[in-house]
Amino acid sequence: MERIKPRTLSGFMELLPREQQLLEGMMAVLRRTYALYGFTPLDTPLIEASEVLLAKGGGETEKQIYRFHKGDTDLALRFDLTVPLAKYVALHYAELTFPFRRYQIGKVYRGERAQRGRFREFYQADIDIIGDGQLSVMNEAEIPAIIHHAFTRLGLRRFRIRVNNRKILNGFYAMLGLAEKSGDIMRTVDKLDKIGPEKVKALLMGEDIGLAAAQAEEILRFMAITGTNGEVLAALEGYRGRDAAFDLGLDELRAVTEHLAAFGVPEGRFAVDLTIARGLDYYTGTVYETEMQDHPEIGSICSGGRYDNLAEYYTDKKLPGVGISIGLTRLFYVLNEQGMLNRERNTAPADALVIPMMEDLSFPVSVATTLRSAGVRTQLYTEPKKLKQKFAYADKLAIPFVVVIGEDEAAKGQVSLKDLATGEQRLLSPADAAAAIRAALAPRNSEPVIREK
Amino acid sequence: MERIKPRTLSGFMELLPREQQLLEGMMAVLRRTYALYGFTPLDTPLIEASEVLLAKGGGETEKQIYRFHKGDTDLALRFDLTVPLAKYVALHYAELTFPFRRYQIGKVYRGERAQRGRFREFYQADIDIIGDGQLSVMNEAEIPAIIHHAFTRLGLRRFRIRVNNRKILNGFYAMLGLAEKSGDIMRTVDKLDKIGPEKVKALLMGEDIGLAAAQAEEILRFMAITGTNGEVLAALEGYRGRDAAFDLGLDELRAVTEHLAAFGVPEGRFAVDLTIARGLDYYTGTVYETEMQDHPEIGSICSGGRYDNLAEYYTDKKLPGVGISIGLTRLFYVLNEQGMLNRERNTAPADALVIPMMEDLSFPVSVATTLRSAGVRTQLYTEPKKLKQKFAYADKLAIPFVVVIGEDEAAKGQVSLKDLATGEQRLLSPADAAAAIRAALAPRNSEPVIREK
Repeated sequence: MERIKPRTLSGFMELLPREQQLLEGMMAVLRRTYALYGFTPLDTPLIEASEVLLAKGGGETEKQIYRFHKGDTDLALRFDLTVPLAKYVALHYAELTFPFRRYQIGKVYRGERAQRGRFREFYQADIDIIGDGQLSVMNEAEIPAIIHHAFTRLGLRRFRIRVNNRKILNGFYAMLGLAEKSGDIMRTVDKLDKIGPEKVKALLMGEDIGLAAAQAEEILRFMAITGTNGEVLAALEGYRGRDAAFDLGLDELRAVTEHLAAFGVPEGRFAVDLTIARGLDYYTGTVYETEMQDHPEIGSICSGGRYDNLAEYYTDKKLPGVGISIGLTRLFYVLNEQGMLNRERNTAPADALVIPMMEDLSFPVSVATTLRSAGVRTQLYTEPKKLKQKFAYADKLAIPFVVVIGEDEAAKGQVSLKDLATGEQRLLSPADAAAAIRAALAPRNSEPVIREK
Repeated sequence: MERIKPRTLSGFMELLPREQQLLEGMMAVLRRTYALYGFTPLDTPLIEASEVLLAKGGGETEKQIYRFHKGDTDLALRFDLTVPLAKYVALHYAELTFPFRRYQIGKVYRGERAQRGRFREFYQADIDIIGDGQLSVMNEAEIPAIIHHAFTRLGLRRFRIRVNNRKILNGFYAMLGLAEKSGDIMRTVDKLDKIGPEKVKALLMGEDIGLAAAQAEEILRFMAITGTNGEVLAALEGYRGRDAAFDLGLDELRAVTEHLAAFGVPEGRFAVDLTIARGLDYYTGTVYETEMQDHPEIGSICSGGRYDNLAEYYTDKKLPGVGISIGLTRLFYVLNEQGMLNRERNTAPADALVIPMMEDLSFPVSVATTLRSAGVRTQLYTEPKKLKQKFAYADKLAIPFVVVIGEDEAAKGQVSLKDLATGEQRLLSPADAAAAIRAALAPRNSEPVIREK
C-alpha cells in the first residue's frame, strides 16, 4: 500500500496528551470562573456566510481570512468571537434578555505568515456583557475582578491589570485642541514602552503630526502620570472642568477603581495607565490590558474594553457592551516555552492502573468498577505482558497508583495498592483503596496549571 | 449605514442560552465518564492537508467534504474524528504509550444536503483504545460498561446496547461457502428491521445474490437467534467446530458478555444481536450499536467496534483498536424534538441575582464576592431600572434566587434572600445566604440532562 506521510499543518497547535491535559485544565478554570460571574456559555458555528462575517469590511484581517466556496455559497471561517457574537445578538435579539452575559471559548482562524509562536488556528476565551440601549459602568468595574479571579486560579501570581479610559484620552486631546490628530498621536504614544519618551517626542513634532514642542511636552507629562490609583486619580482631577468627555471618563475611572477591594482585587494588582489605548475606533470607555510583570515582552495576555455599538452592521438597535479576550493558545505556548506549566499537577490519563495477576478477571473488573464509582479514574490493564512491563506502562504515563490483584488478594476480597511515587504498598479493600487514592491525589489535583517561580 | 441581514447558515446548529447549557451539561458528563475509564482528552486541528485527510480516498464522503485552498495549500475540514486520530497516532507514535486511550469531543463537517435534523457542522464524541501490534479483547468487553455509564449519567433509562462480532458473521458465511458473497448478503440482512424476513429472503434469492432457498433459510434462521445472552451463546455453540474464525469470534463474544455484571452493566441493558454488521470493511471483531428502546426510529445513538488497522494509510505499524462514537449534535436535536431535555435542571446563567437598593455599592459588591467565593454563580444587577423590572429580569432568565440589599440590611451586614420559586424571603448573613442557595440548588444541579417519561 502506498502511504501518505502524516503531518499537521504549520501554525496549527497539536498537543501531546500531558500538555493537552494542562490546556484542558486552563479551559476548565476559565469556564468555572466565567460561570461564577453569571456568564452563560455560547457556541456559534466555525463557518459563517462571508457576507455576514465580513459585514464590517476587513482591513488588515481580511487578507488573513479563510474564505472559500461550497457549491454556490461564499463561506468564511470566523477570525474572532466578537463578530459572531454581534451576529448572534442581532439575530436572536428578541429571544435574549439584556444585559446579556456570555462566555465563549472557541477556535478562530487567521492565515498569518507562519512563524514560531504564531498560530493560524487558536483558541480565544471571551466574555462580553451586552446592554440593550444602555449599560451601567459597574459592569466595567467588575471586569478587573474577573481577570484577577481567573488568572489567580490558573496559578499566576505576578500580573497586573492596566486600565485606562478612552474618554479621558479623547477629552485630554480635545483640551489641547488636538481632537483631530488624536488618532495619530495615540498610535505614536503607544510606542512609549518600546522607544522611550525622547523618540516619541521627536515623532510627535515630526512632519506627519507636526505638534509644537510645548504640546508634545504636555502630552508626555500627562502620559507620565503614575503612582498609586489614588495618586493618579488626584493628578487627573487637576484637569477637571476643561472638557465634558474628560470629566465623564474620570468619573467612570473612579467608579472602576472605587470598588476594587469589595470585588476582592488587591490594590497592587491594578494600575491606571494612561498610555493604554487598545485600537482606535471600537472602544469608547474603560480599556484593559493584562501584563505578566516578569514577562512584559509577551505583551497583554488579556485585553478588552467598553464599546458603544456591538452590532451596528446588523441592526439599528444600540447595543453597548464591555468585553475581554484571552488568546489562550498563544498564552499556553508562551507558558510552556517559559517552563511555567506546573508539572506537579496530575496529568496522567488515569489515577490508578488495575493489574490482574489471575486468570479469572471477575474480581479485578469489579475492583475497577468500585474505584470508578468512587470517582477514581481507573484503567484496567489486561494486555499479556510481563509484570515489569505493566509497571513500566504506569510509569511512562505517570499513573500514580497501581492496584495489583492476585489469587491471594482476591480470596480475601482485597487489593495490593502501590504508590509509585513513594513505593509504599498496602493491602486494602477496594473501597479503602479508592479512598486512599483520592486522599493522596487531592493536593495534586488542586495544583494550579501555572507555576510561577 | 447599510446593514447586512444577520443569519446563521442552514445545517449549522446555534442554540439559545438555556439549550446551550443543556448541551454543555451533556459534554461535561461525557468528559467525566470517559476520564473515569482512563481516556485522556485530545484536540486536533479542524483543518488538515487534503492529501492527509483523504489518504484513504473518499467514496461517498468525499463529495461532502469542505475542501479549499489557502494560498497554494490544499486544505480540508475534518469529516470525522477517526482519520485525525489515525494521523495523530502515526505522527506521534514514538511519543505515545500503548494501549493509548483517548477521547475527543469536537466538531466535524459534512456538506450534506440540508434537511431537518441533518447537520453540516456537528459534534462527535469519540473514544478509542489503540494497541501497538495487539490489543486484548478485554478492551472490547469494557466498551458496553462505558456506554451504559455515560447514558445512565445523562439520564437515559430505556436504551439497549446491541452487540455482535464480525468474526462470527464472516465465519458463518464461510461455513455456508458464501464468503465471497458475504458483503452483499450482510447489506441485505441489514434491512431485516425495515422490510422483514420474507422480503429479505426474496432479495437473497434474487438475481443479484442468487442463493438457494435452503441457504437463504439457513441465514434467516441464524439471524433469528434471540433470547437472553446465555440462550444466544448456547445456540451459537451449536455451530462451533466448523470454522476457525467463527470459533474465535464466539470466544470473543463470550469474553465480552462474561464480565458484564462485574462491569456494572445490567443484563437487560445488553443484547447479542446477530443482525448488526456496522459497515463492511473496517470492523473485524466486536461491533456495537445503542438503541433507545422507545425510539427505534432514531437509529443507533452510539456505535463502533473493533478494527485491526487504524493507520495503515500513514504507517506500516499495525495498530489495532476499538472505538465508539456518539453523534452528539444529532442526539441533542432528537432529544429536544422528543421533549426529553430535562427542564428541571438549572440552566440559568446565574444562581443568584444581587440587587442593590442603595447608593453606596461597596456592601452589595462584597456580598457578590462572598457568594462567588462560596461557589454561587452570582450576577450583580446595577442597571438603573425599577425594582419590578429587576425581578422580571431574574424571572426571564430563570435565576432562582434574588438577593436584595437595602440600607437597612447593609447596616446589619445582612441580605434579604428571596427564593423565586417559593416566594419565601429570609434575612441572612451573606455566608448563610450562600449556604442556603447551595443547599436549595443541589438537587436541581444534579438533575440529569435527559428526562425519560
